[in-house]
Amino acid sequence: MRDEFRRALAAAESTLAELAETAAAAIEQATVALLDADATAAKRSLESNQALRTRLAELESNAYDLLALQAPVASDLRVLVTVVRLGADIERMGSLASHIAETAERRHPDTLVPEPLVPVFRQMGEVAHQMAIDAAAALRSRDTGHAARLDAEDDVVDRLRLELFGQIAGDWPHGAEAAADAALLGRYYERFADHAVAIADAVVYLVTGAAGEA
Amino acid sequence: MRDEFRRALAAAESTLAELAETAAAAIEQATVALLDADATAAKRSLESNQALRTRLAELESNAYDLLALQAPVASDLRVLVTVVRLGADIERMGSLASHIAETAERRHPDTLVPEPLVPVFRQMGEVAHQMAIDAAAALRSRDTGHAARLDAEDDVVDRLRLELFGQIAGDWPHGAEAAADAALLGRYYERFADHAVAIADAVVYLVTGAAGEA
Repeated sequence: MRDEFRRALAAAESTLAELAETAAAAIEQATVALLDADATAAKRSLESNQALRTRLAELESNAYDLLALQAPVASDLRVLVTVVRLGADIERMGSLASHIAETAERRHPDTLVPEPLVPVFRQMGEVAHQMAIDAAAALRSRDTGHAARLDAEDDVVDRLRLELFGQIAGDWPHGAEAAADAALLGRYYERFADHAVAIADAVVYLVTGAAGEA
Repeated sequence: MRDEFRRALAAAESTLAELAETAAAAIEQATVALLDADATAAKRSLESNQALRTRLAELESNAYDLLALQAPVASDLRVLVTVVRLGADIERMGSLASHIAETAERRHPDTLVPEPLVPVFRQMGEVAHQMAIDAAAALRSRDTGHAARLDAEDDVVDRLRLELFGQIAGDWPHGAEAAADAALLGRYYERFADHAVAIADAVVYLVTGAAGEA
């Protein structure tokens, strides 16, 4: 790989790492908004998402211009597409955090999550936040070992989601609307986690050239 | 734009149009599986999705090799990324149809959707199916007029989803688990519709060079 292309790629990865950290902040704030009925946290989460979207659009625009100067070969193009896809994953993470923040805002000042589910969502929020941090670390360090860690964290999210559904399907005195909200919130955390996994897999691809699920 | 690049692009769009039609079939079959507790339809929907994924991987692989021969400029690279993103939209449509088919399979031979919601889901399924057909037509004809039509159809899906949530939040005697299932199913149809809209917007971008929400 040419040096200049390599440098541009490293710069893009570094920006993406920062933006994955922004997504981590956005989901942390959204979880606070959700569980503590904190309207300021909801607003902050939505602002984080806006900042993220603006910087991603700039990053993508620069990526085309830089690469076009390099007479790219097929493997360069795969790398470009992988970088743009990483951006799309981070963008979706920001959107999913926003869905959680907006759900919290819609019910404010009521708390949305029935008391017995608070620990499940608290844990989901913590693991999802950590996964975004780990995805950022993967981008920054190009260490392919993060992928295995993210897979393990993803299993935790899946287990928490099963626990959530077990509660909904069991003795549920909180009404149908709360069940629908809880199911959707669980889905948002699950998808957030999926995108963090996809980032770590894409880093494996970028480092090894092996087909990851980018 | 060079002739060969233009031809390769047209071929990719034609394949993507076929695959959008496969996604249309997958959601039609999934809706039958869901509303008629039809296990064969569920199986067919999952097979459609598998076929779709295999062909998308081939298409993407070819796209890099073809474009690399063209000494691409920045605008070519945007087009490549747009084509790959179109593929990703269609892939998500297939996955969402599979989620619906799998939900139907999980409850088989019971019907999952409470009787009063059947018309809402029937309509959602019809509109989502039509949106995939219209997205395919947009890819095939490069007619930017499809984007407005898909926006209108997307509004119908949003309205149906509101109706669904109104029923869940109202007098709901079907239990919390059915409410959670219905909320998630509504979400799958909504996201399917979003991706169809994104395809039509990307076609506008490919034709006019204007920034669409690709």
